[in-house]
Amino acid sequence: MISEETHKKQGMLIVLSGPSGTGKDTVLREVVSKDRTLNLSVSATTRPPREGEVDGKDYYFINKKNFLNMVKEGKFLEYAKYCGNYYGTPFSEVDGLLDAGKDVILEIEIDGGCQVKKRCPEAVSIFIVPPSIGVLRQRILNRGIDNINNMEDRLETAKKELKFAGKYDYIVVNDNLEECVLNILSIIKSERMKSFRINYIINEVL
Amino acid sequence: MISEETHKKQGMLIVLSGPSGTGKDTVLREVVSKDRTLNLSVSATTRPPREGEVDGKDYYFINKKNFLNMVKEGKFLEYAKYCGNYYGTPFSEVDGLLDAGKDVILEIEIDGGCQVKKRCPEAVSIFIVPPSIGVLRQRILNRGIDNINNMEDRLETAKKELKFAGKYDYIVVNDNLEECVLNILSIIKSERMKSFRINYIINEVL
Repeated sequence: MISEETHKKQGMLIVLSGPSGTGKDTVLREVVSKDRTLNLSVSATTRPPREGEVDGKDYYFINKKNFLNMVKEGKFLEYAKYCGNYYGTPFSEVDGLLDAGKDVILEIEIDGGCQVKKRCPEAVSIFIVPPSIGVLRQRILNRGIDNINNMEDRLETAKKELKFAGKYDYIVVNDNLEECVLNILSIIKSERMKSFRINYIINEVL
Repeated sequence: MISEETHKKQGMLIVLSGPSGTGKDTVLREVVSKDRTLNLSVSATTRPPREGEVDGKDYYFINKKNFLNMVKEGKFLEYAKYCGNYYGTPFSEVDGLLDAGKDVILEIEIDGGCQVKKRCPEAVSIFIVPPSIGVLRQRILNRGIDNINNMEDRLETAKKELKFAGKYDYIVVNDNLEECVLNILSIIKSERMKSFRINYIINEVL
């Protein structure tokens, strides 16, 4: 018999951040494909849709006025301005899933990650780092960049961002993709065993 | 090059507790055999040595006067009286290993586990629970007990002890031994990625 307590099970919120070039996108895709119970949340943005992007699937495409109204009304778990456009995670998206007991994973910028941790201290925040600045430089080079100034800017930004790692719960090095993904899956699995999350099972045992 | 920061790496203290009959001993043995970097700490006791037990290996066998002196001098990380004998974990044992950057795992009674968590909040505490009281009853029966009163006493104690699960960081159900061991190994692996433990790697990356 499922006890009443069981119904109170809340989903877990997981936040993934890291400097650009650390391979967050690929890591997230792999993690979500290996743990099918994880849910992605759809962000809102003022950026115009790119070809093939679907409203409500890739993003909620809204205009700046609406976005800023939502900010004023406290409707974002986190938001940030990036290259002139706003990006944000609506509370409604995340809360619905969490209340249904589903785990949600967000890949967000470091500023947003810190906002989430302040608002939801029980969220699990994971910071992905490259094995070294040298490797990061090589990865950015491999992706192709416009010019060497752009490269130096990106490395400087990465160095500044790395200093925020200590504000996250976990630091995972992305040296080998497979290992990095396994480490993140291991963190998620362990966090599900945190006593404050599964204390209800004690009633089931009794 | 190993940075200076690296030298500051402290070992991690892991505490394993749970009601009797949950299979803690077996779980601990398996965990330690699978993760060879874990170290056991030798406890002190006033109980006389059993045949084959070696002083300094199985226990430090000391008399009651010396034990109580050590208690007075605050030399125990935790201690408890059990069936008329004292048992305790000397600080010196654990600190030496932790300072050398080695991880230590302790299997202790629930009262002791709560003492450790108070003194070392950064310790990782894991509470093992049986899948149900019915299963616990069967396991105690399988081990053989003296009489039915003894059984009821043990079950009553277990029920009381289960209420302390929420004071531990993690709750792991021991339904299937192999799975329980994997879960504990996963917790240990994840805890090693906690940012406050490995923040020094940011300096290495930079």
